[in-house]
Amino acid sequence: MADKFNVAVLGATGSVGQRFIQLLQGHPWFEVNELVASDRSSGQRYADVCDWRVSDAMPESAREIRVKGLHDSIESQVVFSSLPGGLASEVESRLASEGKQVFTNASDNRMVPDVPLVIPEVNPEHVGLIDVQRKNRGWDRGLIVANPNCSTIHLVLALQPIWEQFGIELAMVTTLQAVSGSGYPGVPSLDMIDNLVPYIGGEEEKIESETTKILGTLTEDHIASAAITLSTQCTRVPVRDGHTESVSLKLRKSASVDEVIEAFSSFRALPQELGLPFAPEKPVVVRDQPDRPQPVLDRDAQNGMASVVGRVRECSIFDVKFMVLGHNTIRGAAGASILNAELLVKKGYIS
Amino acid sequence: MADKFNVAVLGATGSVGQRFIQLLQGHPWFEVNELVASDRSSGQRYADVCDWRVSDAMPESAREIRVKGLHDSIESQVVFSSLPGGLASEVESRLASEGKQVFTNASDNRMVPDVPLVIPEVNPEHVGLIDVQRKNRGWDRGLIVANPNCSTIHLVLALQPIWEQFGIELAMVTTLQAVSGSGYPGVPSLDMIDNLVPYIGGEEEKIESETTKILGTLTEDHIASAAITLSTQCTRVPVRDGHTESVSLKLRKSASVDEVIEAFSSFRALPQELGLPFAPEKPVVVRDQPDRPQPVLDRDAQNGMASVVGRVRECSIFDVKFMVLGHNTIRGAAGASILNAELLVKKGYIS
Amino acid sequence: MADKFNVAVLGATGSVGQRFIQLLQGHPWFEVNELVASDRSSGQRYADVCDWRVSDAMPESAREIRVKGLHDSIESQVVFSSLPGGLASEVESRLASEGKQVFTNASDNRMVPDVPLVIPEVNPEHVGLIDVQRKNRGWDRGLIVANPNCSTIHLVLALQPIWEQFGIELAMVTTLQAVSGSGYPGVPSLDMIDNLVPYIGGEEEKIESETTKILGTLTEDHIASAAITLSTQCTRVPVRDGHTESVSLKLRKSASVDEVIEAFSSFRALPQELGLPFAPEKPVVVRDQPDRPQPVLDRDAQNGMASVVGRVRECSIFDVKFMVLGHNTIRGAAGASILNAELLVKKGYIS
Amino acid sequence: MADKFNVAVLGATGSVGQRFIQLLQGHPWFEVNELVASDRSSGQRYADVCDWRVSDAMPESAREIRVKGLHDSIESQVVFSSLPGGLASEVESRLASEGKQVFTNASDNRMVPDVPLVIPEVNPEHVGLIDVQRKNRGWDRGLIVANPNCSTIHLVLALQPIWEQFGIELAMVTTLQAVSGSGYPGVPSLDMIDNLVPYIGGEEEKIESETTKILGTLTEDHIASAAITLSTQCTRVPVRDGHTESVSLKLRKSASVDEVIEAFSSFRALPQELGLPFAPEKPVVVRDQPDRPQPVLDRDAQNGMASVVGRVRECSIFDVKFMVLGHNTIRGAAGASILNAELLVKKGYIS
Repeated sequence: MADKFNVAVLGATGSVGQRFIQLLQGHPWFEVNELVASDRSSGQRYADVCDWRVSDAMPESAREIRVKGLHDSIESQVVFSSLPGGLASEVESRLASEGKQVFTNASDNRMVPDVPLVIPEVNPEHVGLIDVQRKNRGWDRGLIVANPNCSTIHLVLALQPIWEQFGIELAMVTTLQAVSGSGYPGVPSLDMIDNLVPYIGGEEEKIESETTKILGTLTEDHIASAAITLSTQCTRVPVRDGHTESVSLKLRKSASVDEVIEAFSSFRALPQELGLPFAPEKPVVVRDQPDRPQPVLDRDAQNGMASVVGRVRECSIFDVKFMVLGHNTIRGAAGASILNAELLVKKGYIS
Repeated sequence: MADKFNVAVLGATGSVGQRFIQLLQGHPWFEVNELVASDRSSGQRYADVCDWRVSDAMPESAREIRVKGLHDSIESQVVFSSLPGGLASEVESRLASEGKQVFTNASDNRMVPDVPLVIPEVNPEHVGLIDVQRKNRGWDRGLIVANPNCSTIHLVLALQPIWEQFGIELAMVTTLQAVSGSGYPGVPSLDMIDNLVPYIGGEEEKIESETTKILGTLTEDHIASAAITLSTQCTRVPVRDGHTESVSLKLRKSASVDEVIEAFSSFRALPQELGLPFAPEKPVVVRDQPDRPQPVLDRDAQNGMASVVGRVRECSIFDVKFMVLGHNTIRGAAGASILNAELLVKKGYIS
Repeated sequence: MADKFNVAVLGATGSVGQRFIQLLQGHPWFEVNELVASDRSSGQRYADVCDWRVSDAMPESAREIRVKGLHDSIESQVVFSSLPGGLASEVESRLASEGKQVFTNASDNRMVPDVPLVIPEVNPEHVGLIDVQRKNRGWDRGLIVANPNCSTIHLVLALQPIWEQFGIELAMVTTLQAVSGSGYPGVPSLDMIDNLVPYIGGEEEKIESETTKILGTLTEDHIASAAITLSTQCTRVPVRDGHTESVSLKLRKSASVDEVIEAFSSFRALPQELGLPFAPEKPVVVRDQPDRPQPVLDRDAQNGMASVVGRVRECSIFDVKFMVLGHNTIRGAAGASILNAELLVKKGYIS
Repeated sequence: MADKFNVAVLGATGSVGQRFIQLLQGHPWFEVNELVASDRSSGQRYADVCDWRVSDAMPESAREIRVKGLHDSIESQVVFSSLPGGLASEVESRLASEGKQVFTNASDNRMVPDVPLVIPEVNPEHVGLIDVQRKNRGWDRGLIVANPNCSTIHLVLALQPIWEQFGIELAMVTTLQAVSGSGYPGVPSLDMIDNLVPYIGGEEEKIESETTKILGTLTEDHIASAAITLSTQCTRVPVRDGHTESVSLKLRKSASVDEVIEAFSSFRALPQELGLPFAPEKPVVVRDQPDRPQPVLDRDAQNGMASVVGRVRECSIFDVKFMVLGHNTIRGAAGASILNAELLVKKGYIS
């Protein structure tokens, strides 16, 4: 195992933390050696402090690991963080200043100007911002790379093939989001039996700001925001996993529905070329049945790493509309961070 | 009871038929005397053939009624129809030709040029089309008045205060619809546990066409379509009752969010002036909590006869956006037909 | 209104507290004047501190009431308590010692030897224990009467007609309980979408101990436990309201299934004789369809004050088995306390 | 692939049929070559007639297979049948008479006296009944082996370790069953949102009769029923996959709770000894957390081939009670048939 990078998972007992551990089992490049949780779990066996809730059994390799507290020192080179917003910023910066390569799923760092917010199929060139980050902060080997919010990722993955071929001026979006997005215990069952909630605090702002950053252009020392206007409405629906989004787009260049479908279907990008272990063969999967995508049937497409698009058709107001669905805790969270880390291995930033 | 109008309910064992019977219990102007279902139920007690599924117990007055078949003769003056599409057209026309006043919740007649499609708060003047209808068809006392689809009603009720004050050019709509809309057995549970379906056959077309008819203008002999463009995306979610819709509007005259909220809140129309028994005191109810409206908390507002609006705010693409929710089998179906009939009583068409 | 008793509701912002306020609207004997919640709500308008979640709108009469804290003095004669376990005991005792008549839905006092645990149709004579209570505690006018746990009430209401006619030796019970039983936020949605939980902490012990007390005999100074053995298994299922219980009974005297059904159907007791306002006409309703009772179809029977029984049939191990279902926050909580208070008015204990 | 047995799946487009195809992908001994569905699908590509609904994508190897009708001739040696009850009996008998080895998940043949009803961990010796079957019917190579109903399998798997060590006299059972058990479209969503149904037609009779056959004794020419009395109550709850059962047992020999847990945990049987490909390492998995087993967390234990037991404790009426949960379409249906076929390969019946 000497040739694998040692990995620490921050927020290891939370739902995204558990996904990190599950997904990293048997990873060819990374090996989980340290699990970090709240200070009161420090020193205990992971099996004793974690209420494991992703469906498969807890990996044997994780059970016996002694959990570290947030203030304990970390030895691993690579850090995956799923710390709650508010707490993440300070801890992640400290670790990066100590030379760690930090891949964060937390919201704190996403919009920080010198932190790249990366989807490897969309804006891999933004990793160049790391040089600015290191210079700004006086870091040598350390770095912080963020991945977007779970709703943003699947939206932008679906936008990218259209964005690069036809340009997008306007995007009207309504989301129908799964409850796992807010962790455990999260959303009360009284809100989700025979009900839905038309509001998720802060989510709409995140989608709108993160999208313009991801689609933006790397200049010498910052990301210039993309010229796209979004209007979003987020709802929570009684689904465990899988965010669904209703999207209407005004394009810059005209395109037929068939051309849009072809753009989705033929979309391949750098992770596919590089053969990154977590790269889906097809980042965007197109369904042609009229009643797809659906959470239970489509969220696990391409091991949960794809965005699944359906009902692609003309919009009577804008140009094209469609539904997009994706797994919110795999491609939308832990899997996104892992793919970012894989990209940085190939780019030579991990060492 | 001599002063009440006798009523027949067509499709009396279905879910909307049951709602008609439930809602008409104790109605001051109408009395249910005849229940019509498929021919094979003909002659049996209603209590023996109907699997009553609206929550309250079956009204005692309905239990002993002998069900009539679709080909049996009807004596009642007023007919409420919840027949399935395809079957409704012929039966309703026959009854109207026999002099009955038919109020239909079926889709068959909605877009027929000489059938008024009415929401009493929105286009009560369209009942004038009855004169054209009678002339066209050689009917003396008979008539057919339709109410819109369950999603259309709540959308248009919410649009009306804005439409009349500021004008609307464009409406982008995504719906999250309850399962009761497709009757019983309707949507399979395997589609609705941990899942949603981004498609309801024919629903989008209905909303788009019906809205332009309802908001249209009565000319000498037809309804001129309204100049509004809609783009809709319909989804089915795991909710029993209550359709929720995400709406963004481009207005013709500029309006602040406060002016829009005031237009919603102060909206009163003819049914309120006339004091129709089923008219809600406030046709549009505004919630100011950020996480409303919600199906379980808001669908029964104003006895299920109101549209409940929330999250009214600026749209970064158009002018204003909001969520609207309403009960799909009360105001969205049976209650809509009853309110139409009440309007026609006041207008002198029922006799 | 001078002839109504003034009422204070403790725990007024919780889900059972809200039910008390909803159910007491327009009550002929009681009028809600004081609402008591945590000290930090003290002095604020009820409408401002309560997230009203029972479906109808918050009663106008409650909106403007200034909430009192738990340590503020109470003026009302009658107190309905839905305080959480642990907190209830001290507050309720203090108020009773000040002369208040306290009707508690909390678990703290139920098994206290000198507190009567009453279902008016089952053991109204247990109110005689109040004399012992007053003597023990040196109270003059004050008193505490408890109602059972939500699952116990519906079980025991269904047992009573059989208990009094045939005797019961053994009762094997598996419950399928609604989430409203644990309040809001309560059970996480991740536990209730595509899932159930086969455990409710402390619930099984409550059902078993409370049942033997309720069915027990009032002696000179205590309740002698009934000679019945119960074995219970409690589960939580994705239902908002309505607990369902699978029950098998070994009787002391043989009875045919028809005799048991007749015992259920003909069951009437003191509350029905006295015409108490909240007494259901039929405390036990029998369904003969094979697939009943069901939560959505039966929980509101008799305004939620009845227990609904179905599938009554022979048990191949014991004598008879059946399903029983009832509303857990109406007859199972707030409605139970109100019926107890009504009984005590008639018995002359309220003044 | 010459050394694999060719397999035909009957009822290939249904939900259990799809599970057969999914589970047999890459099976070391069996290869799916023929897919049989209704005659109107005959001749069409499987991908064109099957609405694939198990979560993973349809196996590539199945997509292009031309579906056969029920009356077409079958060439495969091994037949897995998931035909609906009523239809299965005739088709299965015809195929067996033609020399096929038929493994049926249908209910038709389960209680037929000369058809073995087998759970390989429980009654592998019942395959000896095949000799009687062949003699009775004049079959040479053909045979029919049935697996039990989905609820029966998990109940009996959990009973077996106790049955063989301590004996069981009485079993009181209440089930909470998933909707996938009734196929697609199956249970209506209006029955499963905020609701449950306390009845599954015929299910209770199946569990009671099948259990006494499986636990019975093979005599010279039939199965003598086991001396165990069951009383069951079946309910349908809003869960996609995974039946949960509440079980109380009266034993013949006394056993402590620890001894029962040890019996569960240490249980291994013939499939484990033989190393059958689908045999779970542990047929009965014991959870010690108080709130387990739960469908989403436990149904996939051991690839869905185990029964998961929890809450093992004393019963105040009988001796021991516990909850058992298992996947109803894997171990409860398709996986059960496959394990039976594997057993018969090892026993030399397949050729």
